[in-house]
Amino acid sequence: MPGSSTLYAAIDLGSNSFHMLVVREVAGSIQTLARIKRKVRLAAGLDQHNHLSQEAMQRGWQCLRLFSERLQDIPRDQIRVVATATLRLANNAAEFLQTAETILGCPIQVISGEEEARLIYHGVAHTTGGPDRRLVVDIGGGSTELVVGTGAQAAQLYSLSMGCVTWLERFFSDRNLERDNFEAAEQAAREMVRPIAPQLRQHGWQICVGASGTVQALQEIMVAQGMDERITLPKLRQLKQRAIQCGKLEELEIEGLTLERALVFPSGLSILLAIFQELGIESMTLAGGALREGLVYGMLHLPVEQDIRSRTLRNLQRRYLLDIDQAERVSQLAANFCLQTTNEWQLDTRCRELLHAACLIHEIGLSVDFKQAPQHAAYLVSHLDLPGFTPAQKKLLATLLQNQSNALDLPLLSQQNAVPPRMAQRMCRLLRLAIIFASRRRDDTLPAVRLRANDEELHVILPHSWLERHPLRAEALDQESHWQSYAHWPLFLEEQP
Amino acid sequence: MPGSSTLYAAIDLGSNSFHMLVVREVAGSIQTLARIKRKVRLAAGLDQHNHLSQEAMQRGWQCLRLFSERLQDIPRDQIRVVATATLRLANNAAEFLQTAETILGCPIQVISGEEEARLIYHGVAHTTGGPDRRLVVDIGGGSTELVVGTGAQAAQLYSLSMGCVTWLERFFSDRNLERDNFEAAEQAAREMVRPIAPQLRQHGWQICVGASGTVQALQEIMVAQGMDERITLPKLRQLKQRAIQCGKLEELEIEGLTLERALVFPSGLSILLAIFQELGIESMTLAGGALREGLVYGMLHLPVEQDIRSRTLRNLQRRYLLDIDQAERVSQLAANFCLQTTNEWQLDTRCRELLHAACLIHEIGLSVDFKQAPQHAAYLVSHLDLPGFTPAQKKLLATLLQNQSNALDLPLLSQQNAVPPRMAQRMCRLLRLAIIFASRRRDDTLPAVRLRANDEELHVILPHSWLERHPLRAEALDQESHWQSYAHWPLFLEEQP
Repeated sequence: MPGSSTLYAAIDLGSNSFHMLVVREVAGSIQTLARIKRKVRLAAGLDQHNHLSQEAMQRGWQCLRLFSERLQDIPRDQIRVVATATLRLANNAAEFLQTAETILGCPIQVISGEEEARLIYHGVAHTTGGPDRRLVVDIGGGSTELVVGTGAQAAQLYSLSMGCVTWLERFFSDRNLERDNFEAAEQAAREMVRPIAPQLRQHGWQICVGASGTVQALQEIMVAQGMDERITLPKLRQLKQRAIQCGKLEELEIEGLTLERALVFPSGLSILLAIFQELGIESMTLAGGALREGLVYGMLHLPVEQDIRSRTLRNLQRRYLLDIDQAERVSQLAANFCLQTTNEWQLDTRCRELLHAACLIHEIGLSVDFKQAPQHAAYLVSHLDLPGFTPAQKKLLATLLQNQSNALDLPLLSQQNAVPPRMAQRMCRLLRLAIIFASRRRDDTLPAVRLRANDEELHVILPHSWLERHPLRAEALDQESHWQSYAHWPLFLEEQP
Repeated sequence: MPGSSTLYAAIDLGSNSFHMLVVREVAGSIQTLARIKRKVRLAAGLDQHNHLSQEAMQRGWQCLRLFSERLQDIPRDQIRVVATATLRLANNAAEFLQTAETILGCPIQVISGEEEARLIYHGVAHTTGGPDRRLVVDIGGGSTELVVGTGAQAAQLYSLSMGCVTWLERFFSDRNLERDNFEAAEQAAREMVRPIAPQLRQHGWQICVGASGTVQALQEIMVAQGMDERITLPKLRQLKQRAIQCGKLEELEIEGLTLERALVFPSGLSILLAIFQELGIESMTLAGGALREGLVYGMLHLPVEQDIRSRTLRNLQRRYLLDIDQAERVSQLAANFCLQTTNEWQLDTRCRELLHAACLIHEIGLSVDFKQAPQHAAYLVSHLDLPGFTPAQKKLLATLLQNQSNALDLPLLSQQNAVPPRMAQRMCRLLRLAIIFASRRRDDTLPAVRLRANDEELHVILPHSWLERHPLRAEALDQESHWQSYAHWPLFLEEQP
């Protein structure tokens, strides 16, 4: 394989930062080779007449010289460079762009807000799981995009000229985090959003996905504070309260908020609060990708699939050469066990889907080594890029896979925050049993197991004399009942008379 | 892929333990699915008339009932079951075997000592790297195999009826670790080895490989005590001394020696001491596999390759979809750098080969994720089964890959014990430079770099104005010189006038 022909690059010249993403296409999926980000602060160089300063241009060109060395190795038609808000606005943008194109050796497209929104929607559609009717929110430095769509199709596209950098300059220029500043920022943002709210609400959405640094920062805060990863209005209000208590921007301190994101956090938070309220959003999760991913997937011409998660799981099965029949066998057994315990244990659709995902890749650790395979599985799942799964869901999957056999690590099951700990425990128990029963890798040796749950007590009822006729699995089940009881999960093996 | 048709099983009914190995053939290499071992202690049931007791037989049958459940799912012609020393000796073996075959549902071959030696040699040849003229030593419970051969071909095969269990009963039955017991055990073993020494020496060997629990135990002791992994006569003598100091078998305590291996350690050590002395062995390393691996590779009909390590590295490149051109590019650059610094830095063949291996798989971490790719690479290499590389070599590779970029973790480089720390540091520096210079993934942008080493001072001499014309790599090199100087490795960038 000639090194460069599978390489693609996407560059976006944003109002706050310039980004370059270099990827390699490997077996139909995308492998990131480099992400380079430079804080160029182009927007800060724009005066009230929308004239871009020489200093800002110099900063931009300097950054592009760096990018250009890497770009030279990538086929021209596998590079896309776009510029957004600030270069849409600047009346001397042409001067900047001419030199910039010479440095990069390839054309730069200044894209409209609507085109930006469309690309962001595509980036999200390719990398984010869950139901396919969605609202996508991206708060940039100089503009905010709001899109509703279904599957691959964006239905309503809006780009508003407010962003976390411009809102910082307009409402927090005194660097005070007082309530008045927040209220003013929020009010102004609500007025921007209000006119488009009816059209967005009319299309409606099943899930809401955020794709910007602000949402990323919120996600990091939730994780650091051990909260559920979903962003809700009460949580946003609480964080605003916390920021107000800090008083000054330079004294802003919130567990999980990094220095790099702190400067534009209050302004971004105000915009997000406005959007939540005007659109009546219940909860939001972080997207797996946005503008640059939209550019890359667009060049690769990969179809947007109905179900990103299935694609991700299928890719993993293929890349790690998993035994697909066995994965299906364990998954079907686990699904059957869910059904049998449904009245008592109430595993909802989300739990069942995540358990299914865990089953499909439970043997991924074998690709590293037989010894400690569950630990290897957890390592891989924690670190792999899994489009369609949120960070909390990845953590749950890792936790389940780590606990798929041998002694149980209970604290791990309560560290994840994708589902309530009790549900995670039940999922874990069913997964373990499914793996034991399917261990012979054949359909015709699966017994007609009946499960009966009674609170956390689980009865496994087997056909007459089954244990005696299957000594290896009998030994495994016996050991399993010990492991589960150490974890205070009573497990009883019974045979029909 | 139908689950069972790619499964293979090898069972050996040894004098001390019964073992079952179940593997899956995946893309031309072997993935272990299960290793089950039960201490059956068959040899202990043999009386002075070589009559096997009913109790010992029952223990054996009980274990086989367990194995049999798993076996039922594997095609008959993909299973091999062999029995060794004790069942060769027992005059009522037929009784044991008849019931055993009924339980397993497949034939059991009682193999001759010579056949056992041949299989062990094959298991080693398929899994052990280095030069191909070798001496293989396997100390079992009831017999010891000694084989010399070249490549796939065993030239001289010997099976001696001494083993760590029989020697334990003969020379340490009082459980005393006194010098006299050791001397007697060693003398008796030397007398067994002496008659075959001339033939073995005549064929000769470039490397000596040990494949038994005794050698495994020694390996673990070396690693735990932070020593070079090669087993030498002085080290064996030191360990004997230490054992004698402990006085009693139940008081034997050596750092790194596990309880499970302790009982037969002194007897195994005596036999190994005898072999080292009679054959004049300089050093021995641990084999990657033996009898069971010989059985499995035999069924799979994989050719023994000249160079196991190359096969392993090629398999990794294929399985992890690595950019092979880039791997070659980095490897050639690193080799060129070795050559340029050869007078000052003296990287020997072993170092150069290991550096080459590190280059060929340096991007393996990208298969997990771009973020922390070096850490992922180290994780994978530490845990993957890499036929041809010893544990210490794996550790060195992991260490080099972890340190392939970004800030240096120096303590890591001194923790490995495959090469002297200073050599590991030099290898690391050349690897890092090769990666930076090759970062554009093209041959035509590689500069004519000259390296000049002066003790640990390294001068990188570039063509005139090269740095200015290549800003991205200039930035990387500048950063690199900082990282290397934090580690007290002076690195100077210079341009030709």
